[in-house]
Amino acid sequence: MIEYETRYHFSQERFRVKYQIFEESKRAKEIAEAICVEQTIEFPIELTGNSIRENVVGKIEEIQNNHNSTVVTISYPVETVGNEPAQFFNVIMGNCSLFPNLKIIGLQLSPSIENIFPGPRYGISGLRKLLSIYNRPLLATAIKPMGLSTDQLAQMAYNLALGGVDIIKDDHGLADQPFSKFKDRVLKVTEAIHKANRETGFHTIYAPNITSNEQTMLKQAEFVKEAGSGALLVSPALSGFSSFITLRENTDLPILSHPAFLGGYLSIMDFDVLFGTIQRMIGADVVIFPNYGGRFTFSKEDCRKINHGLKKPFGSFKEIFPSPAGGMNIDSCGDIVSFYNKDVVLLIGGALHKAGADLTENVKAFKAQVEKIHVR
Amino acid sequence: MIEYETRYHFSQERFRVKYQIFEESKRAKEIAEAICVEQTIEFPIELTGNSIRENVVGKIEEIQNNHNSTVVTISYPVETVGNEPAQFFNVIMGNCSLFPNLKIIGLQLSPSIENIFPGPRYGISGLRKLLSIYNRPLLATAIKPMGLSTDQLAQMAYNLALGGVDIIKDDHGLADQPFSKFKDRVLKVTEAIHKANRETGFHTIYAPNITSNEQTMLKQAEFVKEAGSGALLVSPALSGFSSFITLRENTDLPILSHPAFLGGYLSIMDFDVLFGTIQRMIGADVVIFPNYGGRFTFSKEDCRKINHGLKKPFGSFKEIFPSPAGGMNIDSCGDIVSFYNKDVVLLIGGALHKAGADLTENVKAFKAQVEKIHVR
Repeated sequence: MIEYETRYHFSQERFRVKYQIFEESKRAKEIAEAICVEQTIEFPIELTGNSIRENVVGKIEEIQNNHNSTVVTISYPVETVGNEPAQFFNVIMGNCSLFPNLKIIGLQLSPSIENIFPGPRYGISGLRKLLSIYNRPLLATAIKPMGLSTDQLAQMAYNLALGGVDIIKDDHGLADQPFSKFKDRVLKVTEAIHKANRETGFHTIYAPNITSNEQTMLKQAEFVKEAGSGALLVSPALSGFSSFITLRENTDLPILSHPAFLGGYLSIMDFDVLFGTIQRMIGADVVIFPNYGGRFTFSKEDCRKINHGLKKPFGSFKEIFPSPAGGMNIDSCGDIVSFYNKDVVLLIGGALHKAGADLTENVKAFKAQVEKIHVR
Repeated sequence: MIEYETRYHFSQERFRVKYQIFEESKRAKEIAEAICVEQTIEFPIELTGNSIRENVVGKIEEIQNNHNSTVVTISYPVETVGNEPAQFFNVIMGNCSLFPNLKIIGLQLSPSIENIFPGPRYGISGLRKLLSIYNRPLLATAIKPMGLSTDQLAQMAYNLALGGVDIIKDDHGLADQPFSKFKDRVLKVTEAIHKANRETGFHTIYAPNITSNEQTMLKQAEFVKEAGSGALLVSPALSGFSSFITLRENTDLPILSHPAFLGGYLSIMDFDVLFGTIQRMIGADVVIFPNYGGRFTFSKEDCRKINHGLKKPFGSFKEIFPSPAGGMNIDSCGDIVSFYNKDVVLLIGGALHKAGADLTENVKAFKAQVEKIHVR
């Protein structure tokens, strides 16, 4: 006969997750109680003894009924996570990702949980120091479109770097395609940018897209490091958060996080969690996301949340850069800086090409525009 | 001056993605056109030459307006994927995961794309052969709840195996926690099940949960293989699809796929894609998902789609087992088998414990119930 009791001595250290439940208050309370069980024991609670109920099951710490939804804070014992990032995401949202009408709107970690996440290596202050740029936004652009050869992309990177842009990233759609193979591109684009840097005295860095499985990313990061490109681009939803963390722990290059494939999670996490706090936990230094007013539908309020999630005090995790993108142009820079403040990576892609045939001149105009902005 | 033309000789091999766009027809067509660009060149199309437009950009192959939505089939050149699974997901849903009102409802691969996915090693026929069970559903259960010690879980596994259940899996919440460490659990639970097998002549296998980052999963899979447990449990949304694929390529154990953290993707993919075809591509042999009528809100229609996605002809990928779960009990077995047919893994967790204190007897009752079912 099995006794459903635990004999383990729990530390009583707990972390907290704030859920918003889009149901009327009575139903929301039932769901909150279901979450406490579903995310931990996933077992008939009436069969369990006090030791399990008290130590293992989630606890409702606070519940607040709003107009259309209920906000509930649930605490979980750190022991449920077992020092494993994937298991952390399992505890906070594993099975209940399959519940409708529910999302995470806040995380309050505890020391043991903080310790299992690497956090950003650089963050805003570290990346500024690396680039020796302290008093203005960073300027970024991308080499694209898909289909160009490595030589064409290298020429483009050279022209962009001549104008003095701070960061050139691969378009997130560039991978290891036959029209531009990864290693060849890393070498030639890096060389082109280094050549421009020698001519201008600027220090443009290059972030090749290494998004892949974990093994491949680690090898590619090593290759990028040796090439001297200076940074990495990864889409964490495509690589998996766990692989992103492994990468962060195994490279000393700054990492730009791209939102490709991440959108599905907006149905289970609010903007500041998905694009903010979680990105800091897994170790991104710059987070790219769709700005309001571009090709995507993110609102000003959504973007305000993201900016807050990236920069608010959050445990021991460094603040990191927002990089609002997705249809930005030179004229939007002033507005972006006044919205996000000077700690922002201004990322202009296609519009820099639309502005005229001379990419170097376009970057110079971009830079001149930013220098005119009175930074906060 | 950059020329936005490609010089690469494209094969003209294309794969197709069917999107459902929940907008009125005129707006839906604009979105479809935006997808063609966003998912490939992500660049002002007016600047590109014919070679890019013809060879790289997605093409609308078919568009059909329904009552509340528009279904559009878009084809992409295989070269955009560059033989990289993560990049495949990027092309089909990367940036447009950030569009609202849009989901993937079908995939039609081409030979080059099929080749980059491992597919199931066993599938329904292979797993049946491995277990020597050909004419009835498979019976599965889980050891739980979180908080029990390894000795308690091993005792539980022994009692369950004595009853002759086919598969015992870890609860997906069991990881490497201090109350039950991974390696110790694998060894002791496997030993307990082997002991029961020797006594009964049954061949119960055990699927420990190895969900983690890729490196850790590979090591843990090796450990499970050496222990002789017989199978693996992984939550692909927590590990990342890419790591799941790497695992599949590096282990010869059958893999059970758990839906933890996968729910967010239901906002961007339909049930049969997320729980069906994609699971076959990445190499799951059994897919666990919430059955209709349990603790979750999946409908019969949702589950019908999943069953179809798992078993319909789909390229060269083997058919794999549905494992509807989330609140099933012995009495639901007949209904489940008549709904899914005999190719189903009946997974009963908590209800097997609620049925009485003698787990061995409960499993026997479960088995007797299934043997009474007239299988199709």
